[in-house]
Amino acid sequence: MASTRERIVTATAELFRRNGYTGTGLKQIVGRAEAPFGSLYHFFPGGKKQLGAEVIREAGLPYAALFDIYIASADDLVAGIEQAFAGAGETLVETDYADACPIATVALEVASTDDGLRRATAEVFEAWLATGTEACSTFGLSREAARALAIATVTSLEGAFVLSRSLRSTEPLDAAGATVAARARELLSTSAGSARHPRG
Amino acid sequence: MASTRERIVTATAELFRRNGYTGTGLKQIVGRAEAPFGSLYHFFPGGKKQLGAEVIREAGLPYAALFDIYIASADDLVAGIEQAFAGAGETLVETDYADACPIATVALEVASTDDGLRRATAEVFEAWLATGTEACSTFGLSREAARALAIATVTSLEGAFVLSRSLRSTEPLDAAGATVAARARELLSTSAGSARHPRG
Repeated sequence: MASTRERIVTATAELFRRNGYTGTGLKQIVGRAEAPFGSLYHFFPGGKKQLGAEVIREAGLPYAALFDIYIASADDLVAGIEQAFAGAGETLVETDYADACPIATVALEVASTDDGLRRATAEVFEAWLATGTEACSTFGLSREAARALAIATVTSLEGAFVLSRSLRSTEPLDAAGATVAARARELLSTSAGSARHPRG
Repeated sequence: MASTRERIVTATAELFRRNGYTGTGLKQIVGRAEAPFGSLYHFFPGGKKQLGAEVIREAGLPYAALFDIYIASADDLVAGIEQAFAGAGETLVETDYADACPIATVALEVASTDDGLRRATAEVFEAWLATGTEACSTFGLSREAARALAIATVTSLEGAFVLSRSLRSTEPLDAAGATVAARARELLSTSAGSARHPRG
């Protein structure tokens, strides 16, 4: 069975994803985690803010791996991008439009209200962009072009999640995927080499 | 001076934008609006939910006009798109990364928790897409291509706001603008006519 600390982090991440930071109460967290109230302050003496920052990092950072799964391992950059957006659409439908980005709601909530939590979201986004730049670089793009494409991928996914969840439709995700694919084609055509570099 | 109802709506819109739906309390609203507490239930007998839905619509719908200001009136579709993203970046910097989309935070918060409020956000997004499709159509794109580009514009702006506010940088907005511009060039090149249609 998961440790008390792990159960608290997992419960908080689930509640943040659905209710946001402000909408998640400490009583709700310990209830869902089946943990005594005191254990929360034992593991997170800084209370909700400290727990929030750690949950943002622990829930957010692993998502960088999606760049490796969908893009770095694809034979074709454009096809890899299209598959990443299609995969995100399938997850949204399967979860009844609930599961999208683990940190976007919190990121918008805290952007202007809590600088410590904002920094935690910034760390996660920068980690994603670093992994995404690496993944896109393997297709012969310059670092600058690879970073531009990584940013395009993350921003388009995040914005498409906002619209797709609101409209309960994958149309925004589909349009966003086609948009990033067009940018990838443009960047590949102006880049030195458009062929996949051998790896490993 | 604005009517009591107007002051309540304006105060709520400002609080939603900065603190989100859950983080905005009724006492805060009447305090900022300098309105007696009872007036809130006089104008919005359904309480916070009714007020929330009306504020989402009243704050969100006017933003459709940005498609007319930046895109429908541009001589060149790609330049119009680039100017729209540059303008959004200037607003973000001027407001210390606080003012971005009037409804995105609320849209993410309520997407899975309140279907009435979710529908209000969906109405606003659909209204933007309708105006955006109209604006993009004036450049000779098919309805389908024009709608795809309108969706790309809104999703890319929304996602770029998430990252730009978190990172306190306009880099995501710049990358998103270049991405939508690439999609516009692609759609124009495959469309029947790429020249601007005369209007009026």
